[in-house]
Amino acid sequence: MLIDAPKGLKDVVVTTTLIGDVNGAAGYYHYREHDAIELARTRTFEDVWFLFVEGRLPSSDEAALFARQTAALRPLPAAISEVLPAIARSGCTALAGLRTALSMLPSQPMWDAPMSTRKADALRVSALTPTILAALHRIKLGLDPVNPRVDLSTSANWLYMLTGQEPSTWTSRAVEQYLIATIDHGFNASTFTARVVASAGADVVSAVTAAIGTFSGPLHGGAPDRALEALDLIGSPDNIDAWVRERIEQGDRIMGFGHAVYKTEDPRARLLKEIALEHPTPLTEFAVTVEQRVTELLAELKPGRQLYANVEFYAGVVMERCGIPREMFTPTFACSRVIGWCANALEQSEDTKIIRPVARYTGPQPKITQPHIR
Amino acid sequence: MLIDAPKGLKDVVVTTTLIGDVNGAAGYYHYREHDAIELARTRTFEDVWFLFVEGRLPSSDEAALFARQTAALRPLPAAISEVLPAIARSGCTALAGLRTALSMLPSQPMWDAPMSTRKADALRVSALTPTILAALHRIKLGLDPVNPRVDLSTSANWLYMLTGQEPSTWTSRAVEQYLIATIDHGFNASTFTARVVASAGADVVSAVTAAIGTFSGPLHGGAPDRALEALDLIGSPDNIDAWVRERIEQGDRIMGFGHAVYKTEDPRARLLKEIALEHPTPLTEFAVTVEQRVTELLAELKPGRQLYANVEFYAGVVMERCGIPREMFTPTFACSRVIGWCANALEQSEDTKIIRPVARYTGPQPKITQPHIR
Repeated sequence: MLIDAPKGLKDVVVTTTLIGDVNGAAGYYHYREHDAIELARTRTFEDVWFLFVEGRLPSSDEAALFARQTAALRPLPAAISEVLPAIARSGCTALAGLRTALSMLPSQPMWDAPMSTRKADALRVSALTPTILAALHRIKLGLDPVNPRVDLSTSANWLYMLTGQEPSTWTSRAVEQYLIATIDHGFNASTFTARVVASAGADVVSAVTAAIGTFSGPLHGGAPDRALEALDLIGSPDNIDAWVRERIEQGDRIMGFGHAVYKTEDPRARLLKEIALEHPTPLTEFAVTVEQRVTELLAELKPGRQLYANVEFYAGVVMERCGIPREMFTPTFACSRVIGWCANALEQSEDTKIIRPVARYTGPQPKITQPHIR
Repeated sequence: MLIDAPKGLKDVVVTTTLIGDVNGAAGYYHYREHDAIELARTRTFEDVWFLFVEGRLPSSDEAALFARQTAALRPLPAAISEVLPAIARSGCTALAGLRTALSMLPSQPMWDAPMSTRKADALRVSALTPTILAALHRIKLGLDPVNPRVDLSTSANWLYMLTGQEPSTWTSRAVEQYLIATIDHGFNASTFTARVVASAGADVVSAVTAAIGTFSGPLHGGAPDRALEALDLIGSPDNIDAWVRERIEQGDRIMGFGHAVYKTEDPRARLLKEIALEHPTPLTEFAVTVEQRVTELLAELKPGRQLYANVEFYAGVVMERCGIPREMFTPTFACSRVIGWCANALEQSEDTKIIRPVARYTGPQPKITQPHIR
């Protein structure tokens, strides 16, 4: 007997998880039992990465060891270095290039591998993601890749590899908080993809490359450059009303506002707004003005919908302030989310049941001419 | 409100489809309204490929045109040729190498692209899959790749690219029937993966590379080399009983027998057995003996389970007979299944609802310290 489910499996429970959850009504999300925003405010990226891998926060000795171990995994393997120029020349997007390069990494089918091997594969994939993305970015610009440094944090090293300059403490910490806050966020479509692949017993690289594909989809959401484009299109405070009303009349969404799960302010937007206001620029001030007015207009034009600024809106503002090129906003997001994909793939790999729903055939009755039954 | 579903979403309807279906109780499966086995017996691979792309069988003019058009898509783009040696040297599996190479192909997010573009992307991915797999195989063996020929059928060209020799008519047709019979088979896990990626509006390459990851998983099934290994391990007819009883006592599955959906003989196994018996070898005769005795033993040892030879069992026998190296059995399967993945991705791309189920968090109550609500 087939079981009918809501479109897109909305609200259908596909698995249990210990990794975390989103409470869209109350406006918070958590990693394990820790408030994710509180972790972003108080912890290093490596501490929270450890939490995703080991299921608990590290002691200070463990934190130092983990930071050294993961930093040591940053340099590109020769097999990947060798092909990066060809990948860059192929004209691919940053995410497609990342997928191609990661796809070359050896990793063991999780079904056959002990958890220690699965974790080692996951750490290597996660540690190499920023290196690959930064190297491809620079090669596309005609620049030499900047080798990763082991003495920098993940965040500082990311900015260093992008620009060749060591970032300021504030810049590095601002990006670090963004990275922590975006490692995971409930059961988004790319995370689900990683789990489907893992459920077949496949390897971490298969799960992550698949997740990258879904992540690249226009309906996945989370692209911070789109919200900044909206700010550019609005241009000035006296144009906000006209621009928003025109968008709504045409049935368009306002990029950077509203969320599938949150019916409150997005807690990530609130964190990033506070960060942006620590060192405000004219863009920050304009963004705050736009946020306030758009929220009012959406309350008027879409009553009851509870549309607030989402993570995209202030993520773009913070990343622009930190000197990240716009085409590297979504790749920056991938640098943190890869850790969430890996954690979900590893958790799924402990389940022995493949994820295999069904489709209902709705075409004409088939004409069966062969006697197949035995 | 969350909706609980059976483990692994078993029997949960995630979408409707016109592509086809499997009737596990009656023992048949179909592509559109056509009996798939009948298509394998009576049609060319290109005719059935057309059916998956256009939703109907071609006229003879359309068939000739489609065969020419797809043959013209076989040669490797320079960007891929250039990196294949590095991919081969990286020590990857055939499927991982295929994923890496396909990942370099440009393709348009389906959300933004007209159906004609989506189809063109899908045809290129499908047409290049055999070329990439054969080239990687030969490079790994230290041989030069054999350029595809446009004057051969997909099946004959596949065998030609693998071996450098034009196959006999019988061999080519035997493999062609296998390829037709394995293009699609209901909603297997790799097909579902392709649809999840497509549901985010992503491109065909993202959907297919993701599906390859799931396909590579040990729980996906369909690996014809494993069934042949079982024949090797049994070795001789007088060892069948002892070998099967020992496997069953140890709680192992008998590779090549039983299927998640069929409670009858697998119609693909029946087709492939008939093909194998057209030109029997000692292996064929041994396989028939093993099949008969194992079926009897399984009926005795696993009463009521209705375990029969599945597609893997005779696929291995046919491919061995046709001179395909064992490590290329599963890649041969990928050459046909890629067409099913593409058809499913394209069908999903016409739906605007992302596939995004949920997980139920079962860890400790989170400690929320920030007032996030607005």
